[in-house]
Order: sequence, then structure tokens, then C-alpha cells
Amino acid sequence: MTPDLIAAARDRLKGHARVTPMLSSPFLDEIAGRRVLVKAECLQHTGSFKYRGARAAISALDPATRARGICAASSGNHAQGVALAAREMGVRAVMLMPADAPRIKLENTRALGAEVVTYDRATQDRDALMLALEAERGMTLVRPFDDAQVIAGQGTCGLEIAEQARDAGVETADVLVCCSGGGLTAGIAVALAREAPGLRVRPVEPEGFDDTARSLRSGRRETNPRQSGSLCDAILAPAPGELTLPVMLRHCGPGLTVTDDEALRAMALALLRLKIVVEPGGAAALAAALFCRESIQGEAVIVTASGGNCDPALLSRAMTLPQD
Amino acid sequence: MTPDLIAAARDRLKGHARVTPMLSSPFLDEIAGRRVLVKAECLQHTGSFKYRGARAAISALDPATRARGICAASSGNHAQGVALAAREMGVRAVMLMPADAPRIKLENTRALGAEVVTYDRATQDRDALMLALEAERGMTLVRPFDDAQVIAGQGTCGLEIAEQARDAGVETADVLVCCSGGGLTAGIAVALAREAPGLRVRPVEPEGFDDTARSLRSGRRETNPRQSGSLCDAILAPAPGELTLPVMLRHCGPGLTVTDDEALRAMALALLRLKIVVEPGGAAALAAALFCRESIQGEAVIVTASGGNCDPALLSRAMTLPQD
Repeated sequence: MTPDLIAAARDRLKGHARVTPMLSSPFLDEIAGRRVLVKAECLQHTGSFKYRGARAAISALDPATRARGICAASSGNHAQGVALAAREMGVRAVMLMPADAPRIKLENTRALGAEVVTYDRATQDRDALMLALEAERGMTLVRPFDDAQVIAGQGTCGLEIAEQARDAGVETADVLVCCSGGGLTAGIAVALAREAPGLRVRPVEPEGFDDTARSLRSGRRETNPRQSGSLCDAILAPAPGELTLPVMLRHCGPGLTVTDDEALRAMALALLRLKIVVEPGGAAALAAALFCRESIQGEAVIVTASGGNCDPALLSRAMTLPQD
Repeated sequence: MTPDLIAAARDRLKGHARVTPMLSSPFLDEIAGRRVLVKAECLQHTGSFKYRGARAAISALDPATRARGICAASSGNHAQGVALAAREMGVRAVMLMPADAPRIKLENTRALGAEVVTYDRATQDRDALMLALEAERGMTLVRPFDDAQVIAGQGTCGLEIAEQARDAGVETADVLVCCSGGGLTAGIAVALAREAPGLRVRPVEPEGFDDTARSLRSGRRETNPRQSGSLCDAILAPAPGELTLPVMLRHCGPGLTVTDDEALRAMALALLRLKIVVEPGGAAALAAALFCRESIQGEAVIVTASGGNCDPALLSRAMTLPQD
């Protein structure tokens, strides 16, 4: 994983991925006790940053490989990103998704032209199913995070953060990134290490699913005891990746964790103050900025709002929370 | 109202107003039967395009006038835009707002540092109250639309639309603009007439409040029979402006109208597909693009999502609409 790989991904994504805005609100600044800059990746195509990595990976394949099609396994956001990128490039796509993924993610993936194969999270082995799909159909697996081109694609978000932070006059800050397997976290960290060394990346995870925070402390890949049971369904990878952890160990500060309730309250504040829809897993970093202020240093904090694919019922639930 | 005034406003707004993104979704394209590009002004500071005009007008005042403070009358979005722009420039601000304005708009305006004076929409004459405030306090009135500098500020949104449409490969299209007094509509129309003559502006209004559509047909200022009674509270001006109507007569195509139900459905689709919060009045143009497709021509349509300051209860109501 090198900055050059990110620069090359940026060139391939130009005119395809959206340059998402950096948002802010004086009301959020007041809650956080410092300036809060929100990188609104929920406004990326398919509603999450995943489109960047998907497009970067598929566009890096040679034409013959691409012609055999691609496959992916995902609880939802990666599936949608891969489905759209594949469709745009005329590539056949098969997605392996848990049967209990949010309905909107299943439906959207199908509507974006991918073939969806569902499996039972509790009783079936996703990786074995995936390998079978790969072998049977001769397709190339697009991994959600442990792939250098995918990490490079997510890193293009970091290049934008570097530029937008500079425009906002922010040179030193923690950059809180919603973290699952670490693709976005590692990609942004590599980009910032070259482009904005005063910006330090820190992963944010749901309470009870803090594999990355623990791995950063121990120096090796720690796993989560559970694989479900948080509202933050988008960021429940069992462990950091083999490629992403070394990058994070090199570049990242300590991890942070937030509760489901904090993520929901951050969702509500994002709706109210920034006018963006963020799903619970995509609101984790904002929640940390707002509700873990003692664990953060500096006059400003940057957060990713990394995805917005949320069932309407959950949005309504967030909207009816008491407003402090 | 000249393009040069808009260019000058853009220079004064640079580094202050946000360049808002142009969003899209294949799901919306499918409903509309053509490409839909959504200019997300709900992501502007204070949640609506109004900040542009407010900052343009206040920054155009000479220092002595500015020092005496400014005042404004508004159901909400203009008030918030003026309040923030005034606070940023260290200018004292008094806002006259209807007592039944959405609570969030009243609270936000106060929180942004303005003094809020409320009045009863049914029994009190806003203009008379305003003139009294002006005379008593020696403040300068910042009008919501009938002011060349305000129109110029809103026109900076048109400059961005011209550039973003070009980037998207759209050279010919209707540009549907949520229209109240016509400041945004006229400003965008002047900007596009010079920068992108293939883009034709058309105002969109709530059913029963189509003063501008009727004025465009008759050639003179028509008024609405009522001043309340639509969910689209942000766009219920009683008549187009004295300055804005001549501009709209020169540059705009025929007006369109949408029902409250269509605006609510557009709100829900903006939440679901674009991940943005749009208030009913700010969703009118998107509603027209989605649900009045026979009245629109061309392979693409551009719409403004002009504001997102919506009470949480109304958002929840939009989210629980049946999804088609």
C-alpha cells in the first residue's frame, strides 16, 4: 500500500467517483467543544465510500479477467458499490449477502443489476461459499478491504480530506474514521501521511466490536467475540485485515468506541444539523467527536460520515430521540 | 440585475458560501424517465441557499451602515441565513418571524445570535412591523428577494449549476427551481443566460400558491389568494417581486406546480436515494421532476433542493409514506 497506488486510483476514479463535500455546523461545534468537519461520504454514489474501492479494484483488472465477471461478499454497502461500478463498466457481478442484511441494501444491490445470493449468517460459512462461487464461475473476488487496490480507492477519500482540511485552515487534527476491516481507515491514513502529516487517523468502532482498537494495542489481529448484535451493521468485520492492520499500526492513533445509542444520537444530529442521512455505522465517527470529547485533542476534529444506507424505520427511530 | 453583479457576489462569497454538490441516483432517473441532477442547496450553511443572498447583501453594505445593524422578516430560512452571515461579519441582527414558523427555524435563528421578534401571521401586518423596526432602530432591511444584491447572491448558485452541468455533460435541460418570491429563480436565470444558455429555468410552486406561474402567463404580478395552508411553508410568498418578475419574464419557461403529497414523496426519495434532508418547499422542484414528467422536455432535468430545515416530526411522516 503506497501513496502512488492511491494517486493512480484517483486518476482512474476521476469523473466517476464524486468529490464529496466537507460539511460543518456551529451547533455541532458547540456540542463537541471544537470545530467538527464532516466528510460526507454518504453522498458518494450508492450512499457510501465503498464505491471508491470497488471502482478502483474493478478498473485495475485486465480486460480478460474483467470479462469473466466479478463477485463479492458483503452485508450491503460494499455490495452496492461493487454492483454499480461493475454495471458502469459492463462487468457481470454476483453478490453473496447475509439474508438478514437491511432490506434496502439487498434491494438496491439487485436493482443495480447484480445477481444476489443470500446466506444465513449464523449457520453458513461466508468465506467457503465465496470460494465456491469463485471456483465454479471463474469470477474474480473483489474483497471488501483486504486488497491493495480497494484500499487505494478508499484512500482517494483521504486525498480529498487533505485538500479540504487545508482549505478550512485545519492543519493539525484527529481524523476519526468509522472502522470495520480497516480499508477506509488504512487508505485515508496512507494518503494523509504524505499529504497532511498533521492529520492523525483514529479508527472508531461500536462497543463490543472493537477488534481494531485492541489490535492497535496488542500489535496483532484481535477478533470480536460476536459477529452481530449492534445497530452499526456496516462495521462489524470480525477482525482487521491482514493488509490493513500493518498500515494502521504504522500510521494510526488509538481507537475509540461508541455505543449504539450514541451512534443513533449522532444520526439524528446529522439529519438535523447537516441535512445528511447517515446510517448507524456511518455515524460512529461523528458520535465519537460529539460524545467522547475528552478522548480527543486539538481545536478541530475531522470525521467520516461513511455511509447512509439506512432502513426508513431506523431513521424514524433516530428522529424521535429526545433532542438535547 | 446583471451577470456582473453575480460575478462580484461570487468573489465576496468565496471561502464563505459552500460550493454545494450536484447529486444524482439511478433510482431517481428511473422514476423521472430521464437523468435528474439535484443541486443540494440544503447542504449550504444554515441549511438553505438563503445564506448566499444574505452574505452577498450584508457584505455589499458600507461599513458605517453595517455598523448600525441589519434586520429582516422571514418565515425562517432567510432569517437563519441573515443571522449567520451577520454574526460572521460582526453585525447586529434583528429578525421578524411569524409565531407559527417551524420551531426549528425560530430556535436556530436565535441560536445563531439574532434577536427574534415574533408576530401573528393572521392578524398583524409584517411589512408595517418591519418598517417600524427599521425606523426605530436605524437598521438596514435585508429583503428576502427584492434586492439586487440578494438576487446576485442567489445567482452564485446558478454559476455553480452551469459548471456542474457542463462537467456532467448536460448542455440542454430544464432547470426547475423551488420558487417563492423569485430571488433564487431570477438569480439562477441570469447566471445561466450568460453561462449556459441551453439551460432554461422554470419556477416550481405549491398547488394553490402559483403566483409566479400565473404572473409569467399574464405578464404582471399576480397574488395568491391565501398566505398559509401548504406544507411548503418556505415558498409561500404572496407574489413575485418587483425586481424578480421582470427577470423571470425575460428568462424563464412556464411554471410548474406540485401537491403537498408530491413534495412529501420527493422528500422521502431524497432521504432514501440521495441521503439528503430536504424540507417540503425545498423538495418541490424534485417533486416536479419525478411526478410531472410529461410537462418537462429533454434527456436530463436539473432541480434545486433548496432547503432542508424541517421539523423532525415531518421528516418521520415522510419516512413512513408507502415506498413505491
